[in-house]
Amino acid sequence: MTHAIVPPSEIARGHAAKRLGALATPPGALGRLGDLAVWISACQGQVPPQPIDGSDGVRLVIFAGDHGVAAHGVSAFPPAITGAMVRTFLAGKAGVTALARAHQVQVRVLDLGVDEDFDDLDQTTRAALQAHKIRRGSGAIHVEDALSRAETEQALTAGAAVAREEIAAGAKLLISGDMGIGNTTPAAALIAVGLGMPGAEVVGRGTGIDDAALVHKAAVVDTAVARIGDRADDPIETLAALSSADLAATTGYLLEAARQGVPVLLDGLMSVACALTADRIEPGAAAWYAAGHRSTEPAQSLALAKMGLEPLLDLGLRLGEGSGAVAAVPVVRSAVALLRDVALLSELMP
Amino acid sequence: MTHAIVPPSEIARGHAAKRLGALATPPGALGRLGDLAVWISACQGQVPPQPIDGSDGVRLVIFAGDHGVAAHGVSAFPPAITGAMVRTFLAGKAGVTALARAHQVQVRVLDLGVDEDFDDLDQTTRAALQAHKIRRGSGAIHVEDALSRAETEQALTAGAAVAREEIAAGAKLLISGDMGIGNTTPAAALIAVGLGMPGAEVVGRGTGIDDAALVHKAAVVDTAVARIGDRADDPIETLAALSSADLAATTGYLLEAARQGVPVLLDGLMSVACALTADRIEPGAAAWYAAGHRSTEPAQSLALAKMGLEPLLDLGLRLGEGSGAVAAVPVVRSAVALLRDVALLSELMP
Repeated sequence: MTHAIVPPSEIARGHAAKRLGALATPPGALGRLGDLAVWISACQGQVPPQPIDGSDGVRLVIFAGDHGVAAHGVSAFPPAITGAMVRTFLAGKAGVTALARAHQVQVRVLDLGVDEDFDDLDQTTRAALQAHKIRRGSGAIHVEDALSRAETEQALTAGAAVAREEIAAGAKLLISGDMGIGNTTPAAALIAVGLGMPGAEVVGRGTGIDDAALVHKAAVVDTAVARIGDRADDPIETLAALSSADLAATTGYLLEAARQGVPVLLDGLMSVACALTADRIEPGAAAWYAAGHRSTEPAQSLALAKMGLEPLLDLGLRLGEGSGAVAAVPVVRSAVALLRDVALLSELMP
Repeated sequence: MTHAIVPPSEIARGHAAKRLGALATPPGALGRLGDLAVWISACQGQVPPQPIDGSDGVRLVIFAGDHGVAAHGVSAFPPAITGAMVRTFLAGKAGVTALARAHQVQVRVLDLGVDEDFDDLDQTTRAALQAHKIRRGSGAIHVEDALSRAETEQALTAGAAVAREEIAAGAKLLISGDMGIGNTTPAAALIAVGLGMPGAEVVGRGTGIDDAALVHKAAVVDTAVARIGDRADDPIETLAALSSADLAATTGYLLEAARQGVPVLLDGLMSVACALTADRIEPGAAAWYAAGHRSTEPAQSLALAKMGLEPLLDLGLRLGEGSGAVAAVPVVRSAVALLRDVALLSELMP
């Protein structure tokens, strides 16, 4: 934990709110885009805010990993899909990569804990993909810890390093994406602990399980949470016990974005579970986050409400991968354009 | 009325739905973006759909005009604002022009019925702006017809000509915008007639009127509708009696888009009131329309529901001008990108 989190600039927020009120538009006419533009100004410490354009402005990092719990009837898909989807990201043929291309978002894919070696990939691609690999698969959280304490620290450090690299490369807005069959179960467990709620209230259907599997998934979450007892009071212990290499790294990435003062557009369940955990580790981190898209997973809305966040989009996407946040990037650009480019009333009627 | 409306291609719709189901994503995972992509395919008659990119792909035409009713206590702003906002559009300093620049949407501004001559503008700009001008202001609908029958036909013809020009210039998606102080009153009246509802159920606060003005506005709508009696059964007579030069031209524009088989992204109250009227003139027109943004004006949601449409965005924008539709353009691009660029499952697992 290198340095504490400084909140977005109150001074810039005040100036931005004043500018918003002075635009040549009816009061409140920009709705949520006005609020979003003020938040971006506060994050940047600049009024009007800088555009978040070009291929370097927005960066998505997809954290991939497998989950021991996926072998225990909580997912509609087999674990081998994780690696297949990683290859699809690399080929630019997945949903999130299609959206990223459409909206000029730079994509980076990292294997933190996929349960295979990718030795069919060329050396350079494989080295980049596995630069921060922690282990093959993570523990089945209802019967064992996902990670050792050392692996947890290593994953948090890796995520933080990745955030710093992306910021150094020019990122003005960061997004986290996920890939890992079974990952909605540990994500729901993180939220169950963060909000003190039972499994039945936080689990959803993921990529499409049936009613019986949904009941089982809730029981798996309850068993996992009960297993760790008081360790749940410590967010890092919670990550070790209930997350995975990919989710712990995501948490480190989101935490470092807040420490470095770079805003984040959150995606669906995994992204939000990690954001909630980051805010448990360092309260105040959530002030650097906005929510891109409402998930069909109930736990995402519950965790967002706890952080005071409301998604920008609700299009029924349930693709994961970071896709909801990438789809919302143009909304952020709309907000910035309005606060930058609309005339002030004083300019029109001097 | 040159030719009847042919619906979007059922064959292309079927092929697009089949492609959607064959993508390497969990079933239904693209949510509303999947449905939207299928609709665009049906409109284009092509699977996958063509991208709607570049500066020529999407075109917004803003139809400006004044409304006699604005002098009768239905608006928070004075009529002189209409001309001032037209100048702001031309200068590229309005909300909608900022959004259009951010999202590569081409903007054209037309004065159909503004109550001034714009003789301060340079000759070329003024000629383009007034190429289709019908009259200065339109009648106060609760006491007189907005337009003569001849003016109504002229406005419909003008709007249709503009749509054909934009399509000839390469438009693949059309948007209508509005500017005119007082325009939510005639728009609400068009919807009251179209849905058979009383004024109190269709009026909203426009740019910000108080409770007393809202009650008065509902009474103005009721008086206007009562005044025209059975003429309300004829949608063209309805336009003559209750709309304005700008709203009648917008109706002609939206109708011609449907006749020409070019999809439209509807904006707020004015755009939707005209779409509803276009669909009254030629039933089936609405099959060519999608809804960009939910208005805070209740009549917009009522009219959209009647047409079976659900807005893509709900960001609390109440700026008018076409801004809600322009903000939703990237959502359409997201939908097209997904159906075009995501791998088929058969490609990944041959």
